[in-house]
Amino acid sequence: MSEPIGKTRWAIAEGYIPGYSHGKAPELSSHETFCILNASDRAAQIGVTIYYTDREPVGPYRVTVPARRTRHVRFNDLSDPQPIPRDTPYASVIESDVPIVVQHTRLDSRQADLALLSTVAYAAE
Amino acid sequence: MSEPIGKTRWAIAEGYIPGYSHGKAPELSSHETFCILNASDRAAQIGVTIYYTDREPVGPYRVTVPARRTRHVRFNDLSDPQPIPRDTPYASVIESDVPIVVQHTRLDSRQADLALLSTVAYAAE
Amino acid sequence: MSEPIGKTRWAIAEGYIPGYSHGKAPELSSHETFCILNASDRAAQIGVTIYYTDREPVGPYRVTVPARRTRHVRFNDLSDPQPIPRDTPYASVIESDVPIVVQHTRLDSRQADLALLSTVAYAAE
Amino acid sequence: MSEPIGKTRWAIAEGYIPGYSHGKAPELSSHETFCILNASDRAAQIGVTIYYTDREPVGPYRVTVPARRTRHVRFNDLSDPQPIPRDTPYASVIESDVPIVVQHTRLDSRQADLALLSTVAYAAE
Repeated sequence: MSEPIGKTRWAIAEGYIPGYSHGKAPELSSHETFCILNASDRAAQIGVTIYYTDREPVGPYRVTVPARRTRHVRFNDLSDPQPIPRDTPYASVIESDVPIVVQHTRLDSRQADLALLSTVAYAAE
Repeated sequence: MSEPIGKTRWAIAEGYIPGYSHGKAPELSSHETFCILNASDRAAQIGVTIYYTDREPVGPYRVTVPARRTRHVRFNDLSDPQPIPRDTPYASVIESDVPIVVQHTRLDSRQADLALLSTVAYAAE
Repeated sequence: MSEPIGKTRWAIAEGYIPGYSHGKAPELSSHETFCILNASDRAAQIGVTIYYTDREPVGPYRVTVPARRTRHVRFNDLSDPQPIPRDTPYASVIESDVPIVVQHTRLDSRQADLALLSTVAYAAE
Repeated sequence: MSEPIGKTRWAIAEGYIPGYSHGKAPELSSHETFCILNASDRAAQIGVTIYYTDREPVGPYRVTVPARRTRHVRFNDLSDPQPIPRDTPYASVIESDVPIVVQHTRLDSRQADLALLSTVAYAAE
C-alpha cells in the first residue's frame, strides 16, 4: 500500500451507553464501540479522551493496535483511569501516533429488538 | 491538545421529530439530537438556524457549550424563539465562534421497538 | 450568512426501496429519502441521476429547492422520466447549480418494527 | 458529467457479519454490504483487503464495476481467496483504478425485527 490510510486525530461527538439490555450477552448487550483500522506497517499507540457535560475530561485511555490490524473497542470496557457511566452523555477524541481510520457504532437493545447506528468519526485535518 | 478539533459551521439536511412514542420518557421518547463537542479551551457560543419546506428560517436558537465539554441537545427541547413542530421536515445550520464537532442522532419509538440513526454532520470548509 | 454552505455535486452509493411495509402510510411506509438543504439566497435547480447494476443511468430527475428552504424527497416518489423499481439496488448522483447539503435516509418497515439508517452523502470536491 | 465523482482509496473500520438471522432469505438475512458507485466512463477494477484483529490481512478480493454502474456487494458473498468468518470483527480497504464512491451498510436480523446502519466510507485524500 502506497501510504497509510487515515488521520491521527478523530472525534465522536455522540456517546451514550444504554443502561440495560435484552438478549444474549455479550453480543446483544447494549454497547457503544469505536472501531479502529490501522492499515499501516507500525503499531498505533492511541489515547482516548472522554468529554462530559458537567466535569473535566477524563483520560487518556490507552489502546494499542498492531500494524495491519483492526480493533473494535467497546467504550463499555474502558476502565483505566475510570469506567464510563451508563445512561450519561459523553463525547470522545481519539489520537494516534500513526494514521488510523475510526468508525463509531452503537447497539441499543433496551427494547425487545435491537437498534443500530454507525458513522465514520470526524477526522481532523 | 495542539489545536481545537472541528469546524465553525455545520449543516444537518435531515430533520424530523416523530410525533409519538412507545416506552419510558424521556429516554425512550422519539427525539432528534445534535451532539456538540467543544474540545477547545474557550466556551462556544452557538447559533442554530432551522430551515423549513415552506416558510422562512427560524433562529438563531442560542446554545452555549463550556470549554472541554459536550452537550447533546434535543431539537425537541428548543423553544426560543419557537418550538419545532412534530412530524414536519426541517434542516439546520449550526454556527459557533470556536471550532466544534457536531453529530446528528434520531431515536424513533413510534413502533414497539425503537430505531436509531446517526451521522456526523456536514462541516463547511 | 457569509457564504452558502455545501457543495454542488453529491453521490449516494447505497440505494434500495424495500418492496413492502408495515404500519400507517405514508409516514411508516418503507421509503428512501434524499434530504436537501439550500441555505443560499438563490433557488437551487437540481438534477438527480439514478445508476443501476445492469443498465444505463436514468435521469436527470428535476427538483427545485427555493432559497432558504429544505426539501426531503422520497426516491419512491420520483416518476419522470420513470419510477425507480422496488427491491432493486441503485445509486444516485445529485447535481445543483448552487451549493446544497445532501443527507440520505431509509426507513425500512418490512418487519413489525421499523429500522432506520442515515448518512451525509458524499460531496465531490 | 465533468469529471468522475469519488476517490480511489476507501476504508471501512467497522465490519461484522452477524451469525444468524430471522426472516426471509436472502433479503432479510443478516448481512454487511459495501455499495460501489462507478459514475465514470471506464470499468473500475477494484481490490478489497480484509483486516482482522489477530492475523495478517487477507486479499485482495477482486471486484469489477462496469462504467456508469453500481454494485452492492455483500461481504457475506466474498469467497476468493477465502470467506469472511461470521461473528468476527474485521475492517476493509477498498482500492480502485478509477474514482468510485463507497457506502457501508449492515442489516442485522438476529432478533425478530431487523436493524440497519449505514455510513459513507472514509475516503483517503
